[in-house]
Amino acid sequence: MNKVHTIAIIGSGAVGCYYGGRLAEAGHDVNFLMRRDYNAVRTGGLNVTSPDGDFTLTNPKVYQNSEEIGPVDWVICALKATSIEDARELIRPCVSVNTRILVLMNGLGLEGRFAEWFSPRQIFGGLAFTCINRGEPGYVHHLANGPIVLGHFQNELDELESAVALWAQSNVKVSASPSLLRVRWEKLCWNIPFNGLAVAAGGITTDLIVGDPNLRNTARTVMEEVIEAGNADLVAHSENTRIDRVAIIKRMFESTDAMGAYRPSTMIDFVEGKAMEIEAIFGEPLRCAQSLGVATPQLALLTALLRALNAQRFGIKDLPCPGC
Amino acid sequence: MNKVHTIAIIGSGAVGCYYGGRLAEAGHDVNFLMRRDYNAVRTGGLNVTSPDGDFTLTNPKVYQNSEEIGPVDWVICALKATSIEDARELIRPCVSVNTRILVLMNGLGLEGRFAEWFSPRQIFGGLAFTCINRGEPGYVHHLANGPIVLGHFQNELDELESAVALWAQSNVKVSASPSLLRVRWEKLCWNIPFNGLAVAAGGITTDLIVGDPNLRNTARTVMEEVIEAGNADLVAHSENTRIDRVAIIKRMFESTDAMGAYRPSTMIDFVEGKAMEIEAIFGEPLRCAQSLGVATPQLALLTALLRALNAQRFGIKDLPCPGC
Repeated sequence: MNKVHTIAIIGSGAVGCYYGGRLAEAGHDVNFLMRRDYNAVRTGGLNVTSPDGDFTLTNPKVYQNSEEIGPVDWVICALKATSIEDARELIRPCVSVNTRILVLMNGLGLEGRFAEWFSPRQIFGGLAFTCINRGEPGYVHHLANGPIVLGHFQNELDELESAVALWAQSNVKVSASPSLLRVRWEKLCWNIPFNGLAVAAGGITTDLIVGDPNLRNTARTVMEEVIEAGNADLVAHSENTRIDRVAIIKRMFESTDAMGAYRPSTMIDFVEGKAMEIEAIFGEPLRCAQSLGVATPQLALLTALLRALNAQRFGIKDLPCPGC
Repeated sequence: MNKVHTIAIIGSGAVGCYYGGRLAEAGHDVNFLMRRDYNAVRTGGLNVTSPDGDFTLTNPKVYQNSEEIGPVDWVICALKATSIEDARELIRPCVSVNTRILVLMNGLGLEGRFAEWFSPRQIFGGLAFTCINRGEPGYVHHLANGPIVLGHFQNELDELESAVALWAQSNVKVSASPSLLRVRWEKLCWNIPFNGLAVAAGGITTDLIVGDPNLRNTARTVMEEVIEAGNADLVAHSENTRIDRVAIIKRMFESTDAMGAYRPSTMIDFVEGKAMEIEAIFGEPLRCAQSLGVATPQLALLTALLRALNAQRFGIKDLPCPGC
């Protein structure tokens, strides 16, 4: 195989465990910073069920403190966006000048935070198109899909190649995008309407959204606002690529129609009483649209409701990200 | 006193009991069609607490069947709008050609239904600006305010005088509006943002809406849509009156700021798991705006969410009213 990379997984939830596990399975030296599952994984290993093949890491390298991991080739940050303010201190011990940092998180504007803390050239974004849930401690259930789309914060193509190469021997399909900003917005074209409506309609699965003519139409009108805001943002960043409105609407609904009773991550947080990732997924795109003068009345209403649900039902205030 | 009127209260919930009670207190012959509270009121009377004076009707005339009431001078229909399809049959036994019918319900387009069933000249609308809750069976708690604004379906001023006269000896302040349609929309300027957000934000009181800058601003932007739709509807009906945008926004927020932790009726239904009056308060104004080509994206989103909450959380489908 190719070079063995040292990797630190910062944030070993469902996503961090699954993708870190796949990299370990491929022979890399993967070090998991772990909280909830630390003891369970130390004694019982990391157990993954997956349509792409179940696997167990019987004795993975797990840590409760990133100082113990030290500098690595790759940091993969898979924290929840609600923990963004903790990310810098958690990651710093693992970063040297040669370390690359892959932000494998939901939402807009997160790579910009990392680029303030470290060198912009070190920062990559990853978008996981997948459905992974945590099970009991030590267990992760990968349910469907799984590809990652990779981008580089400065859209440097040679850097992007190194990110793709990391996954070459793994059982994860990756692709590279010449525009990280565009793929971030394209993912929001799904997350904003579907995560948002799944929560605001009371904690429902996506089949109930696409199966109800009223909610399906609402998902589409929200998506149209996101497309318009995203394309305005691409113009503002002088990127010579756009979201293809007709194609993405078709693709998003076709894939959601095929998903069945899927529970978006924000909806799972909502029904389990956990902090929802409102600012990264909703608040930051809204601030971006507003700063660009794009009218997004439905995104604004949805964001206000989700913020209120986060704050008033759970006593949780999600922290804002900086404006785009 | 003036002439004693025979009155049938169809729908003896909080509003029907309170206003019917005030008319009985004023000496009128009031007959209550009662469901939940029938036995309690038969044995213990109807007990009302109110800042305008507590009172008890020790032996009010209560019925379980409107046939037993027979034709009256005034029918006051205080059913929930979700029961609109039952209204015709419940009211019919009480209506002669001389009977006047006051629709004391929330929402848009209800008088139009009654005008199809009976003579349009017989139909009045009443808007109760009040806060009344049911207590234990036989008990009603009037908490604040209480005025009724009256209108006639055809805006006939001489008919309107007769409606005002009914309340002359009572402890209820009434006023008459020359445009029933305008006052219906003006009430929606409150009900749509405040009932809607109180539910969609998870079942919260209005102080949490006006006290949160984000929700307060959202209430205002929703209200602006309602004002625009209402004024377009007034134009479409060739009425020479308009909602005063600046004045009503000011008035609605000032009164809500003074209300404290108020629970809008729809929010009470939501938290108690009862059918919410979605179509009359939200769906019908939305259909009206759409038919008139007025963009109301936030009203559309809010309505979709509330319909979904009604249907999916409680298994309840609120019936649509006809288009405006």
